[in-house]
Amino acid sequence: MPTLVLLRHGQSQWNLENRFTGWWDVDLTEAGEAEARAAGQLFAEKGYDFDRVFTSVQKRAIRTATLLLEAMDRVWLPMTKDWRLNERHYGGLTGLNKAETIAKVGAEQVKIWRRSFDVPPPPLEGDSPYCALQQDRRYAGIQVPNTESLEDTIARVLPYFEAEIVPAIRRGERVLISAHGNSLRALEKQLSGISDQDIVGLEIPTGQPIVYELGDDLSVKDRFYLSER
Amino acid sequence: MPTLVLLRHGQSQWNLENRFTGWWDVDLTEAGEAEARAAGQLFAEKGYDFDRVFTSVQKRAIRTATLLLEAMDRVWLPMTKDWRLNERHYGGLTGLNKAETIAKVGAEQVKIWRRSFDVPPPPLEGDSPYCALQQDRRYAGIQVPNTESLEDTIARVLPYFEAEIVPAIRRGERVLISAHGNSLRALEKQLSGISDQDIVGLEIPTGQPIVYELGDDLSVKDRFYLSER
Repeated sequence: MPTLVLLRHGQSQWNLENRFTGWWDVDLTEAGEAEARAAGQLFAEKGYDFDRVFTSVQKRAIRTATLLLEAMDRVWLPMTKDWRLNERHYGGLTGLNKAETIAKVGAEQVKIWRRSFDVPPPPLEGDSPYCALQQDRRYAGIQVPNTESLEDTIARVLPYFEAEIVPAIRRGERVLISAHGNSLRALEKQLSGISDQDIVGLEIPTGQPIVYELGDDLSVKDRFYLSER
Repeated sequence: MPTLVLLRHGQSQWNLENRFTGWWDVDLTEAGEAEARAAGQLFAEKGYDFDRVFTSVQKRAIRTATLLLEAMDRVWLPMTKDWRLNERHYGGLTGLNKAETIAKVGAEQVKIWRRSFDVPPPPLEGDSPYCALQQDRRYAGIQVPNTESLEDTIARVLPYFEAEIVPAIRRGERVLISAHGNSLRALEKQLSGISDQDIVGLEIPTGQPIVYELGDDLSVKDRFYLSER
């Protein structure tokens, strides 16, 4: 039975500081590194193994994958890094402390920006230091967004999933995807058939492997947190 | 001008213990990890950057590449891992302390095995724990050797170099190869036109980036240790 495992990166410095991160390339905290290693140990204990790893081009997801592969003694596995698995771009909210933003514009507006399916936050302004993303070499040749709704995020994640990841699963490869809250929401929405309205409320915890057991037609037979089995 | 950088992995536990390693998957020592990070810092200081990394499927080379990319803030670079960049397989010498082997069979015989171009060491015997390599999943579908001469090593390294690495260089990509003493000898022999007799005496130090500046026809314009410039 094909198995696909999704993993949100371990705690990052800006998770800890409760700041909107999006495409900004924030590293793991020590606690986040420990979560990554623990995920690897959990896979080893539960007898899970992989043939291929996919991740974003953001270091919190890449380093999570690297640390868990070290814990599994599997650093030799092929790892494919692609920007289309990046976190949702939070536009003008990037870098803001969530509590401060709420105090400033109100919880309701923040909730709309964070949790609407198709309303993006205001774009990054030209004088923002985060506009440096436009010049980042890893995005050469890519139209770097200045903000994204969840719908925008899904619109880049799913074609990549269909083109690169589904064929690997169909070849019989056991795939691990190390990614982000919203790029994983895109996949969970697709796999589990979650509505536009409900997907925005799905919380995906850091460092907790989510196992999808699939039928040969890739329909979902079961979905569970590995730590709960 | 195309630039190609070769790097032998940092010190491994069996480098430290002076044991023949070959295909056995020995990890870096703390000193080896520090060498890897120092190589990354050296690249950053000297203004070297890369578009793609190639490495073997052995953890001492992969982790060297990973640690140096972390030091350069470049973990997002594509990294391709292939067994054809592995160290030479030392056959029945695998795991032996070099000094003990010399005491047992004599320095002359060891020198012949280690430094002949086309004489492999005796093969691994069936009861050796190192025969576990034959069942290692990373080599599924591959005829795992039981011993290799330097000539045998070159015969797998060079076709891979021509098929996968040269095209990347021709596309204008700046390539780093993180590999092993003998897989790098294969490349140095090819690039620098070193004779069968002389290549066996070429010592490649751990953790020291070797820069090849190439002409557009990939002829060698210069070769130097980055630490010496």
